[in-house]
Amino acid sequence: MKSNVLETYSITKFDGGKLYKVEDMIATEFPLTIHINGAEFATMVCTPTHLQELVRGFLASEGIIRFLDEIQSLVIDESKGFAFVELKNKQISTTSFQTKRFIGSCCGKSRQFYFQNDVKTAKTIKSNQTITIQECIQLIKRMQEESEDFHLSGGLHNTALCSNKDIIVSRSDIGRHNALDKIYGYCMENKVSLRDKVIAFSGRISSEVLLKVSKIGVGIILSKSAPTTLAIQLAEDLGITAVGFIREERLNLYTHPERIINQ
Amino acid sequence: MKSNVLETYSITKFDGGKLYKVEDMIATEFPLTIHINGAEFATMVCTPTHLQELVRGFLASEGIIRFLDEIQSLVIDESKGFAFVELKNKQISTTSFQTKRFIGSCCGKSRQFYFQNDVKTAKTIKSNQTITIQECIQLIKRMQEESEDFHLSGGLHNTALCSNKDIIVSRSDIGRHNALDKIYGYCMENKVSLRDKVIAFSGRISSEVLLKVSKIGVGIILSKSAPTTLAIQLAEDLGITAVGFIREERLNLYTHPERIINQ
Repeated sequence: MKSNVLETYSITKFDGGKLYKVEDMIATEFPLTIHINGAEFATMVCTPTHLQELVRGFLASEGIIRFLDEIQSLVIDESKGFAFVELKNKQISTTSFQTKRFIGSCCGKSRQFYFQNDVKTAKTIKSNQTITIQECIQLIKRMQEESEDFHLSGGLHNTALCSNKDIIVSRSDIGRHNALDKIYGYCMENKVSLRDKVIAFSGRISSEVLLKVSKIGVGIILSKSAPTTLAIQLAEDLGITAVGFIREERLNLYTHPERIINQ
Repeated sequence: MKSNVLETYSITKFDGGKLYKVEDMIATEFPLTIHINGAEFATMVCTPTHLQELVRGFLASEGIIRFLDEIQSLVIDESKGFAFVELKNKQISTTSFQTKRFIGSCCGKSRQFYFQNDVKTAKTIKSNQTITIQECIQLIKRMQEESEDFHLSGGLHNTALCSNKDIIVSRSDIGRHNALDKIYGYCMENKVSLRDKVIAFSGRISSEVLLKVSKIGVGIILSKSAPTTLAIQLAEDLGITAVGFIREERLNLYTHPERIINQ
């Protein structure tokens, strides 16, 4: 099945003590690049439904339009992932909206792997490291036990840098990307060797999260949530083992399962 | 209590059929503006812990530095929310990193209310609308029943535009902000009168989410998750009733409880 919202992927599931292949539904993550009056304005990743509404609402909430009739035309090329907006006012300069960037609490990472700069910083991971399923389950469990602040406020994401056996350091932030950047900073400051490390993460594995893990240089990401389609594709490309839905005695292997041992 | 991670707020709780005041712990949302070589580069919102790590990791994952020794100095003024970075290489132009924006799956909204442009687009809500506690609980319940895709994939956020009695339209997206933008687009296209409407939202109420609700022009936001400190402050200022942790027969009123009736 391939819809605009969910796509079917073949994954490896661990449940009832056994590993087996299943078809799983993964949330589609779709890059949409918006051009305004001929100039590239922004690229967002989204679920590709109601794209006209999305672009109109985005332009309004960005303050570029106040009323719909300020838009002369809006053409969406879904096959290529472009939205072309012509405003009646040709004088509107999109650059005035771009002089400063605001990094939201849930997306510190802010450029486009599949377009340009991330190619330079994202690293393909080639390590032969392995980890057992029980170690994966224990690491996520320990991260959750450590993250008392999350339970108190319901508002924090956690990231932990781990060896196979234990958590080395964990960081919390309302922004999932910030928690990863704090770990990245820690690794640089402490010259941590990353070849045998694992990152445990409390949030969903989006393309941006996956890219950050690749930039840090770690080959295994563990999460209790789901990945997106784009994250799976990037993990496949970049040699990263993505393990999701780690809960009690179950988990899903999405990419590079060769690093995961059932013993 | 006021820590870097959580702050205590006085809220109104509904539980066991009764409304009462309690002290609650709210996740701190802190704006940090980064200057590089004297020029403003970006503002992120974060949990204000390990800020040195955060800035270093952010610079590395943005591709501005590859090694820590490329940083000549890093000074953080936590009281004002600034990080001043001097790089050894004075030629590094931050503008080359800003020509295109990438809007992550979880933060379509991308500027700073408390700095500049949002002042123009955020609306203060002055409606006298009211809603009962049971209506709040029912709306969140219905939104969750409708969001089957979320349960299938574990990856989608939902936003519903509602009357007091029912859901008018709901939109899903991997990006919480995109779901809100789709609703915004729908309201503009259909010239929806917003004075008596309510937004039900599946995710956390961050400052950016709150601002989008204000721009759409709705006075009541319902969520099953928690708000952040900055969202509470903005909701207070902008006249928005923020209701969170709506689960079964319980909920929390964070701001403007005068719109909520217990009957």
